[in-house]
Amino acid sequence: MSGSGTLVQVKRLLIIGIGAGDPDHLTFQGANAIAAADVFLLVDKGEAKDDLTRLRRDLIAAHGREPYRIVEARDPERDRTTPAYTAAVEDWRSRRAQIYASFIADDLADGQSGALLVWGDPGVYDSTLAVLDEIDAEFDYEVVPGISSISALTARHRVALTRVGRPVHITTGRRLAAEGPTADDVVVMLDAACSFTGAGEDHHIYWGAYLGTPDEILISGPVTEVADRIRAARAEARARKGWIMDTYLLRRAPSEDHRRTQNK
Amino acid sequence: MSGSGTLVQVKRLLIIGIGAGDPDHLTFQGANAIAAADVFLLVDKGEAKDDLTRLRRDLIAAHGREPYRIVEARDPERDRTTPAYTAAVEDWRSRRAQIYASFIADDLADGQSGALLVWGDPGVYDSTLAVLDEIDAEFDYEVVPGISSISALTARHRVALTRVGRPVHITTGRRLAAEGPTADDVVVMLDAACSFTGAGEDHHIYWGAYLGTPDEILISGPVTEVADRIRAARAEARARKGWIMDTYLLRRAPSEDHRRTQNK
Repeated sequence: MSGSGTLVQVKRLLIIGIGAGDPDHLTFQGANAIAAADVFLLVDKGEAKDDLTRLRRDLIAAHGREPYRIVEARDPERDRTTPAYTAAVEDWRSRRAQIYASFIADDLADGQSGALLVWGDPGVYDSTLAVLDEIDAEFDYEVVPGISSISALTARHRVALTRVGRPVHITTGRRLAAEGPTADDVVVMLDAACSFTGAGEDHHIYWGAYLGTPDEILISGPVTEVADRIRAARAEARARKGWIMDTYLLRRAPSEDHRRTQNK
Repeated sequence: MSGSGTLVQVKRLLIIGIGAGDPDHLTFQGANAIAAADVFLLVDKGEAKDDLTRLRRDLIAAHGREPYRIVEARDPERDRTTPAYTAAVEDWRSRRAQIYASFIADDLADGQSGALLVWGDPGVYDSTLAVLDEIDAEFDYEVVPGISSISALTARHRVALTRVGRPVHITTGRRLAAEGPTADDVVVMLDAACSFTGAGEDHHIYWGAYLGTPDEILISGPVTEVADRIRAARAEARARKGWIMDTYLLRRAPSEDHRRTQNK
């Protein structure tokens, strides 16, 4: 992989963040990048996730500039049964790298731009950039930031992610289950096990699924009060749609004493 | 403050994230919200930060729908000399709350929409939502997520914010100085003291200032190698422009042994 091409006719990849689900999350920079692409790579994750592919197709149709081509590939299955989570991810990544390498080698002519449309922001728990790191090919690339599911979550709940002078930790469901909340404000991604139920009585949760889409579900409240509702809503939606993308912010409420000190 | 208005003619505020500096960071949702606003509130932070106001004016001119009005207010000075950081912020907030309350009371007619254009994402180290919480007035409001400086930073450096299965901590310069890096991946905001110089030899830094603007500066490398360059570039730019907005990601490099285990 080459960071900056020395040839004018170098192949170029555009890694475009398309936002968390609402087509209007797309930025003008993202729309311009779609318009600049000659070829799009759509990686199909299987029928259950048709919605995810549909948004990409809609955005290409809306902003792509003719003539463009769409190349489709089938996502390798990730082994979700193994306890060796990292190893399974790495194996999946290598196979995904082959898809990208073939796309660059076979589908992009010199001087052409190929685009990958990434949900949310390409920097936030998305594998694309790490996978591209594994590719041994000559190409230039550009990353277009997108609205992350974290920004979408807090916007829809109309809360700030950060409080004055305080940190926020972004972590995974597995880590939350193992470590508990490591800060007063913790964002949790990829939590199929609803690990928030372990949070204490003083925690408030802002939970969202399918953010920005017509299927959006928002639930918030003290964890002890709403945990069951979230679990039920999550299970019902997952069964109905076949997949779910959800995330949440766990916020430890300042005690009244602490709050008084902060505000005065 | 009321979450959802019961009257059809309720006043409405739109808190619109406009991205980290590039006008093309604006989302279509943000452009639609600008088009829906009757009145815009521009809070002037003083001449040094003219650039910040100019982007807002440009976006209003590009996407606003006539007839609209622009109301200007002068930002209260924050006392930056006191060591009581939180107290100074809270005092500044109360005065900012008065500005917003006056805007809602005096400049918005019933049924009208007023817009506040917020740099980056309204959820990330921005005071607007917290300030609105202090206002005792009847209004509805909506938050439009924006490209945060964090997303802009990692996109420009073409790195992922998160690594597989690992957490990332977002914190402030003061906390980094006091606590050191609390995770292998730490994003630091508001660090006027260049506290990254305390990070160890195994840390890589991805630093950016004025992201997405023509003044953008990007520097990355091992902290021990690039710290002086960053400090110099920061001081020079700050002196020249009168203000600086910068942020960075501190990443502890995996040891070679660890990396082999991860990749195989």
